[in-house]
Amino acid sequence: MNGQPRLVEVRRHVLRDNDVRARALRARFTEHCIFVVSIVSSPGSGKTTLLEKTLSRLGARYRVAALVGDLATDNDAARLARSHAPVKQITTGTLCHLEAAMVERALEGWDLNEMDFLFIENVGNLVCPSSYDVGEHLRAVLVSVTEGEDKPLKYPTIFNSADVAVVTKMDLAAAVEFNSDELHRSIQSVRPGMTTWCLSAKTGDNFAEFVSWLESRREAALSATLLPREAV
Amino acid sequence: MNGQPRLVEVRRHVLRDNDVRARALRARFTEHCIFVVSIVSSPGSGKTTLLEKTLSRLGARYRVAALVGDLATDNDAARLARSHAPVKQITTGTLCHLEAAMVERALEGWDLNEMDFLFIENVGNLVCPSSYDVGEHLRAVLVSVTEGEDKPLKYPTIFNSADVAVVTKMDLAAAVEFNSDELHRSIQSVRPGMTTWCLSAKTGDNFAEFVSWLESRREAALSATLLPREAV
Repeated sequence: MNGQPRLVEVRRHVLRDNDVRARALRARFTEHCIFVVSIVSSPGSGKTTLLEKTLSRLGARYRVAALVGDLATDNDAARLARSHAPVKQITTGTLCHLEAAMVERALEGWDLNEMDFLFIENVGNLVCPSSYDVGEHLRAVLVSVTEGEDKPLKYPTIFNSADVAVVTKMDLAAAVEFNSDELHRSIQSVRPGMTTWCLSAKTGDNFAEFVSWLESRREAALSATLLPREAV
Repeated sequence: MNGQPRLVEVRRHVLRDNDVRARALRARFTEHCIFVVSIVSSPGSGKTTLLEKTLSRLGARYRVAALVGDLATDNDAARLARSHAPVKQITTGTLCHLEAAMVERALEGWDLNEMDFLFIENVGNLVCPSSYDVGEHLRAVLVSVTEGEDKPLKYPTIFNSADVAVVTKMDLAAAVEFNSDELHRSIQSVRPGMTTWCLSAKTGDNFAEFVSWLESRREAALSATLLPREAV
């Protein structure tokens, strides 16, 4: 196709610029002891429900905040605001993913000294967000039991770019004849050794354990980055 | 962001090229009396299940074929092949949508005189496919009852680019406390007057009616394009 090689070249340039910004962002977060978790998935996999419950649960012990990306509407920010955590909506228009620069801009006006956890909910899209680092420490890819057990095989890049897989809507597993073994095989064949959580934010099944695990990840990240610096 | 204006300009060029190819494709399909339906949705909304059942049902009376797009795997083509219709898989690698040129290439080796219906299943993505005409006559956007009633508000562009909305997995409506009125309101506020089908390909609820409607759309398209030509 005409224009394709130029397009690829320009995309590479945009990616490089994004990578530089994302690295700087991550360094800033780390410096402020903020553990940043981004969430990617298809539309409708349950990102906002998981996030709402996570903010409520963590909010009792930590200072938490969230940025949520969508093409249009601030529905998600309104839902998340019920958790009483500071939340900002990023609307991308027709853009299919968040970029580091959008996160950077959205942070303006927030005091990073007042934050322990920041969650970034990406636009619902299982393809494009995989290429864009948004400065997170941990990327969680969600897949609901209603989506089919071969999603990791069909969308390998996003699973490869993520650190943990979260299987959501386990309360619907029986209704959709979900095959847990098959999904685990798909995940492991794309990303061997990937940590996987199966939970239901609705019924609470396995949910407290998942949140505790997030806390432990934050502790681990802080130890890894802070201890050496203190030792210097 | 650096590079953004250039990226937009190059994208416009790619789109123009795609539009020209798509129009030529559609003219070719029309000339051969093939009615072409494309299907877009999130990953896991039930495109392949709907298509499998549609091919089987229509296949009794029409010559049907399908092209299915995915980043990786030919799982969907293998599933659809059970309907005994000719099926080809288009794997896009990391590309988040199908383009007219891919459809063009995939048609090579097929005799267009041997076809009444062609279905094109796009990559599972509720954002990017909206900008790419693939030469179809009718674009159906699927949304499953598990995805949340505000999807049309959050992803307006794809609903605006589609001709019909199909609400899938109605068998799960009660389990997920699906609010049909709310989804209809969302659809109508984004695309007033949009035809909407609510069905379950699994239980067959409303499915035969949907397929009959597709047949009637083909008849209408053929009358509109063929009669004036014959009258000339």
